[in-house]
Amino acid sequence: MRPFILHNPVKLRFGRGELNHLGEEIPEGARVLLVYGGGSVKCTGTLDRVHEQLKGKAAHVVEFGGVQANPEYAQLMPALPIIEAEKLDFILAVGGGSVVDGAKFIAAATAWDGDPWEFVQTRQVHTGAMPLGAVMTLPATGSEMNGVSVISRSDLGQKLSFFSPYCYPVFSIVDPQLTETLPPRQIANGVVDAFVHVLEQYVVMEQHAPLQARFSEGVLLTLLDYGERTYRDVSDHEARDAFCYAATMALNGLIGVGVTQDWSTHNIGHELTARYGIDHARSLATVMFDNFELRWSMKQPRLTQLGRRVFGLAGSDDDRVAREALAAVRRFFEALDVPTSLGAYPNVEADADEHIVKALEAHGTWPMGEKRSVDIELVSEMIRRSVARVPA
Amino acid sequence: MRPFILHNPVKLRFGRGELNHLGEEIPEGARVLLVYGGGSVKCTGTLDRVHEQLKGKAAHVVEFGGVQANPEYAQLMPALPIIEAEKLDFILAVGGGSVVDGAKFIAAATAWDGDPWEFVQTRQVHTGAMPLGAVMTLPATGSEMNGVSVISRSDLGQKLSFFSPYCYPVFSIVDPQLTETLPPRQIANGVVDAFVHVLEQYVVMEQHAPLQARFSEGVLLTLLDYGERTYRDVSDHEARDAFCYAATMALNGLIGVGVTQDWSTHNIGHELTARYGIDHARSLATVMFDNFELRWSMKQPRLTQLGRRVFGLAGSDDDRVAREALAAVRRFFEALDVPTSLGAYPNVEADADEHIVKALEAHGTWPMGEKRSVDIELVSEMIRRSVARVPA
Repeated sequence: MRPFILHNPVKLRFGRGELNHLGEEIPEGARVLLVYGGGSVKCTGTLDRVHEQLKGKAAHVVEFGGVQANPEYAQLMPALPIIEAEKLDFILAVGGGSVVDGAKFIAAATAWDGDPWEFVQTRQVHTGAMPLGAVMTLPATGSEMNGVSVISRSDLGQKLSFFSPYCYPVFSIVDPQLTETLPPRQIANGVVDAFVHVLEQYVVMEQHAPLQARFSEGVLLTLLDYGERTYRDVSDHEARDAFCYAATMALNGLIGVGVTQDWSTHNIGHELTARYGIDHARSLATVMFDNFELRWSMKQPRLTQLGRRVFGLAGSDDDRVAREALAAVRRFFEALDVPTSLGAYPNVEADADEHIVKALEAHGTWPMGEKRSVDIELVSEMIRRSVARVPA
Repeated sequence: MRPFILHNPVKLRFGRGELNHLGEEIPEGARVLLVYGGGSVKCTGTLDRVHEQLKGKAAHVVEFGGVQANPEYAQLMPALPIIEAEKLDFILAVGGGSVVDGAKFIAAATAWDGDPWEFVQTRQVHTGAMPLGAVMTLPATGSEMNGVSVISRSDLGQKLSFFSPYCYPVFSIVDPQLTETLPPRQIANGVVDAFVHVLEQYVVMEQHAPLQARFSEGVLLTLLDYGERTYRDVSDHEARDAFCYAATMALNGLIGVGVTQDWSTHNIGHELTARYGIDHARSLATVMFDNFELRWSMKQPRLTQLGRRVFGLAGSDDDRVAREALAAVRRFFEALDVPTSLGAYPNVEADADEHIVKALEAHGTWPMGEKRSVDIELVSEMIRRSVARVPA
């Protein structure tokens, strides 16, 4: 195995009703910036419950709402003068991954000397961050239990991720009950996003981390067992709990330590979201299959393992098992009403490949993926293939 | 799923050569109590390497060696006046689980007002602990990544465990290379100990934590794949690395959060070790099978799952699959030369059942196990059965 460091200091409180323990986690006398997104946490009553929990613990609370999906630099920056003027010392994010990502950006920006966009671009934050906590209302991104944040600048057409050890939430509350008011589409997105997170850490050539592979398979099996049930039936608590926990474990470092990773599908997906507004998870589903198929010799061995261990496929023909496994994943996504082709999106241009390649070049993401195997030609080809597949 | 808190603050450095990074983890200017066991860390050169790493980082180092397997209260207590006289502020444990357990006891004792045996007996330490780090030279106990410690008082015939959130090591180094000088018997013990750790968190009735079950199965599969290879061949690095990591993950909270647990095999095993000096892991192997068989209706469903998912057993007869699974576990232990019967130990008395029941009663461990289902009659019966099985 390759040496690694596993260090995840987040205190995860998981379970139905855990929001009622938020007060126990807030530092006594904290001066809190309460970050949230659109109005949904207001409509559902979650924000009121949060305020109730802050009473008697926090000395001061200032709301900072309106953080959007794919959180924007320009929208987040106004938080900084507020924090300074109100002498705030703790950030509480209430929402989905975008809100938590936005809160991480704000937290790191408070400790940064200069334009915070610098640390997003360099992906390095060594200067610390204000402590933050999270109440997750939408599972999938894993942001509640990692130090990663993805921030966009639509003025530059950029969507970039950064990591900092200072950006792990001090605590995160994942209360599956809070996700029950979400539109089913968001659940489908969450299932697909989490599934792709695992595959980007699992479908790789180097296979020297057998326990991490077993853990990956455990997360995938759980998503397969409970993902569609969660999507179809809001009253299925057993399924929702399992799905929410699997989504957290898909991207908190556990399955990825000491493992070669290949985030090229995510890199390409970010550009598709930036240009065409396709939901993050859905963007991944449009390119991942082609991305694997076009690098078949690299990807086939682990897809064969996926087939045997996760889908229970028999037969000695490794290549065939791998193809059947990939087909099974495709069926799984489509059962969640998540299209697996760019042809399903009418606003995607016929020459999308050229735009996406240009965007990737501008953002300096080349060469991408495992063994730097994803080049311009490959991306062009996978986008063209995906655009050409127009669902009936 | 039952609500739970997952919070493991340990920074785990895992991998070959990671001992060379010890210096990076020692707090600048620390005054260190260096705790170790017998002389093996001296013979192997590990202690010299530790001192090398402490140079330039630690301001002062005092050795405290001689911690035995099943660490003794009376042996550990002399560390306290040394810590006070030398104004030490950090504890570094170098050894196996016993050494780390002993170091945790010392760490908690420094912050305890009164006789430290009190917190062992009440199993509650709320008063804090001196920070400690660990360099593991023997995998299996999981002590390197949890807050649990097991301490013995042979004068009272007691062996008790306590947990404290203050007793998580700040960092732990698991460097599989350091385990290569161990006698193979210790490796066999480690594999069995880790395997039983998982089963005590897995073979339970309540099954509302599907991802935790998948993770348990992942650890078991890894131990099955690599345990005997590690035991037989010291040059098999791939196997040793996988085994060491699996042992750490078997008891660091990951597979057990939100899960009913049943530690009755451990409770009984501790008494067998206290009375007959049977190695910890070996004591577990002598009673676990009878413990499961005598509560068959409780244990059969999960043993069936074990059979299907871990041993790949087919067939629709659940009961038969469960029995075959248990038989497969027994074969696995015996392939490691670990006996699964008390009859294999000549010093175990014919009336061992009476002594063990009396000891359990004296230590107030009744009623034990899941749904408090392990009573005097059951323990008597399982000990009698195990004693009666004398290997050919």
